[in-house]
Amino acid sequence: MTNPFFKNNGPIKISDIIKYLNLNINSLKQDREIKDIKDLISSTENDITFFHTKKYKDFAKKTKASFCLTTNTLKNELPNNCTPIEVDNVLVSTSKITTLFYPDSINDDFDDSVNIINDTKFNEKVTYGKNVLIGRNVSIGINCKIGHNTIIEKNAVIGDNCSIGSNNIIRNTLIKNNVRILDNCVIGKHGFGFFPIKDNNLRYPHIGVVLIEDNCEIGCGATIDRGSMSNTVIGKNTYLDNQIHIAHNVKIGENTIIAGQVGIAGSSTIGNNVKIGGQAGISGHLKIGNNVEIAGGSGVIKDIPDNLKVMGYPAKNIREFLRENK
Amino acid sequence: MTNPFFKNNGPIKISDIIKYLNLNINSLKQDREIKDIKDLISSTENDITFFHTKKYKDFAKKTKASFCLTTNTLKNELPNNCTPIEVDNVLVSTSKITTLFYPDSINDDFDDSVNIINDTKFNEKVTYGKNVLIGRNVSIGINCKIGHNTIIEKNAVIGDNCSIGSNNIIRNTLIKNNVRILDNCVIGKHGFGFFPIKDNNLRYPHIGVVLIEDNCEIGCGATIDRGSMSNTVIGKNTYLDNQIHIAHNVKIGENTIIAGQVGIAGSSTIGNNVKIGGQAGISGHLKIGNNVEIAGGSGVIKDIPDNLKVMGYPAKNIREFLRENK
Amino acid sequence: MTNPFFKNNGPIKISDIIKYLNLNINSLKQDREIKDIKDLISSTENDITFFHTKKYKDFAKKTKASFCLTTNTLKNELPNNCTPIEVDNVLVSTSKITTLFYPDSINDDFDDSVNIINDTKFNEKVTYGKNVLIGRNVSIGINCKIGHNTIIEKNAVIGDNCSIGSNNIIRNTLIKNNVRILDNCVIGKHGFGFFPIKDNNLRYPHIGVVLIEDNCEIGCGATIDRGSMSNTVIGKNTYLDNQIHIAHNVKIGENTIIAGQVGIAGSSTIGNNVKIGGQAGISGHLKIGNNVEIAGGSGVIKDIPDNLKVMGYPAKNIREFLRENK
Repeated sequence: MTNPFFKNNGPIKISDIIKYLNLNINSLKQDREIKDIKDLISSTENDITFFHTKKYKDFAKKTKASFCLTTNTLKNELPNNCTPIEVDNVLVSTSKITTLFYPDSINDDFDDSVNIINDTKFNEKVTYGKNVLIGRNVSIGINCKIGHNTIIEKNAVIGDNCSIGSNNIIRNTLIKNNVRILDNCVIGKHGFGFFPIKDNNLRYPHIGVVLIEDNCEIGCGATIDRGSMSNTVIGKNTYLDNQIHIAHNVKIGENTIIAGQVGIAGSSTIGNNVKIGGQAGISGHLKIGNNVEIAGGSGVIKDIPDNLKVMGYPAKNIREFLRENK
Repeated sequence: MTNPFFKNNGPIKISDIIKYLNLNINSLKQDREIKDIKDLISSTENDITFFHTKKYKDFAKKTKASFCLTTNTLKNELPNNCTPIEVDNVLVSTSKITTLFYPDSINDDFDDSVNIINDTKFNEKVTYGKNVLIGRNVSIGINCKIGHNTIIEKNAVIGDNCSIGSNNIIRNTLIKNNVRILDNCVIGKHGFGFFPIKDNNLRYPHIGVVLIEDNCEIGCGATIDRGSMSNTVIGKNTYLDNQIHIAHNVKIGENTIIAGQVGIAGSSTIGNNVKIGGQAGISGHLKIGNNVEIAGGSGVIKDIPDNLKVMGYPAKNIREFLRENK
Repeated sequence: MTNPFFKNNGPIKISDIIKYLNLNINSLKQDREIKDIKDLISSTENDITFFHTKKYKDFAKKTKASFCLTTNTLKNELPNNCTPIEVDNVLVSTSKITTLFYPDSINDDFDDSVNIINDTKFNEKVTYGKNVLIGRNVSIGINCKIGHNTIIEKNAVIGDNCSIGSNNIIRNTLIKNNVRILDNCVIGKHGFGFFPIKDNNLRYPHIGVVLIEDNCEIGCGATIDRGSMSNTVIGKNTYLDNQIHIAHNVKIGENTIIAGQVGIAGSSTIGNNVKIGGQAGISGHLKIGNNVEIAGGSGVIKDIPDNLKVMGYPAKNIREFLRENK
């Protein structure tokens, strides 16, 4: 998929990339145009990649990228086709170069391309409220409703038979068919991802999107952040209650039910047919299996296998929790 | 009270009801017009009722309804005046028939009956901000203020001396006198109630309202859902801090104080003079007595009698909790 | 600093103050104009002060105020220059008199002084969206962006290079440079502070402001309440994720990182370089040191010294918590 939201500013000359990082590299044999920045596996010879931890050395050995941001210690794992570019902090440099390729992915300033819907081609096609704003290049299917004061920002895609309520902000988001978004949601802004730097943190780019599959319902006051490198996904027929926070890169399966005020931290994966009670919290980078039930108020801090019911903080088998807390 | 928000679409012929449920019933002696769907007790001979659990068999024996959605096992408890209509899932069929009578109660699409307040009869009577939208048949008392971008949807009733802030959405709600609603609230949308069905959940109707009594204050970012069959009630002089979620059918007493980010799940009842600390959560279908104090962060999963102070997850007597957690 | 937000309604005659409190005091030698109500230390001879607990008797002995709201028991601690005014409840009376001096600080009705930005002097200076509203006497620096439907209420001050998103309400707030406020925030309303009184609580005034220092980022859906007597402060380069609630008088240090759905209760102080995980809650009137790490979901109910990592509810040393919860 060509990312519809963040225009690639490339190609960029490798000499310009090196200059941008304030590096002093003389060993560069010849200059070359670089098309994109990608991970070790998906890079081609026209790309630059990054390699920051030994864990990925098997991928590093086989990368097809022509250049790689890495460290003095790791550079010897790279193949001959790939010229190492040594930096102090690989992730910070990767963030800077990604921003160079995708400058729009770093800030979330308001979309100044919007027009009031009455003045757009959707005037006759969509049932809409007052003060609805539509950005450049938005796509909306048939039989949709959009409530008062809602803002659909540039390039967003909405399928057929969707009902979007009032006061929503929808950005960098792909919505399939028969989806209901209630009111006061902010969907698709960048995640809470940055490198903490004294006096002036460095935000890293978020070039992922939010993908909401068929038949979902998103309750009032939701915040669903878009992904950084991958996407944030809400699976088919999954229902979210009010005041839920879904962080960047989270992937939720199908037919899942999430009660009010739940928070799911970055990059966690939730299975199908999962039930999550109110105010439960799920830490980042976890894998929650299919058919799992998480009691309201639980704090989940490790992976949960399929079919388990858990409760407590830290969450454990619900029978164990209730026995201990009689 | 005639429900001011959801118009009864009846009468509907019993033959049409049977057809709508895709039932094959030949034993129907004669057709008949049905006026409403009600519970076993309040039904009259013009109504259809439902009977889904043995628990209610004493009510079933005495129902005055002419028809009853029920199961093969339960049907023999019904009196002679009441013709059983056998279905596979009584609650799903009840939901479908309630939706047939009250089609507006199932969706919460934005109110397309609104007009900018400047063009309504409230132009001179109400002190209002920019872009205030007022639905059809709204009632507003004397000496009220309504802030910018707030939407008062059709049939809502607001008493005297109320101050409604900016960016609020108020729907299916009755507000008494001297009430303050701060900013960014969504009050009166349907609750998080549906039958989970693979690939396409079935929402059940919410024909209740939100009732906010005199002298209440509702903080910023609140979501207060309306009731399904009964109402959601906020008692007199009860104050809610910011970011609170009150689910459908919850009834809160008088002089109660609820701190920020508290969540109360569906159908729970909270007494008078209750104090609830920040981020506490209360499970559904519980009864919290009068003068109860719930410490911040607590997770309440069972009833609490009058005058008790609790803390912890699960919440227990606060002295016991603090002794165990020194 | 002269408070830019709440106009002092003084001077007010001491006889009028006594009348307003329904007191029957005959001993007043002569009438006098009072300029302000201040604490025991900062009062001058033109002010009235208050003294409600023995704890402050050393300050009371040295106050320069001419009058002091106090009790029969405490009044003898006051110096000769200060005439005691005996009341039943010192804090309630103080609240009433503060309201008399600062009547605008007690209600948070919407700002009816706003104009659409297109019609203001910011028309050319600021990059703005649709339906942006600007109150009387607002100040905005160079190179700022303000998104759709955002309301900047009267007297607010915004520095240079700030990006304010859409649907925000900003009130009684001073924002420094390079600050990003995302969407749907309510910043600067009064805190959740009042005296509980049967049938009709008494709100106390909030004459503090919200101060947001350079380089901060405030996530979507934040509520940051202004201070009552002091200010609410967000320190330099501190980042807040989505759906965070910061209560009145809270002071957060520099370079602090706060994840989604965290709540901080009134008057707590958070140090520099603190990390707070998602959904954690911090009780009121606590002191959290520098370099503290609070795990997600924790409930902090006592002070935490510098450099400690804590987890749990109640939060304790994280090593201890994890050992007990293996």
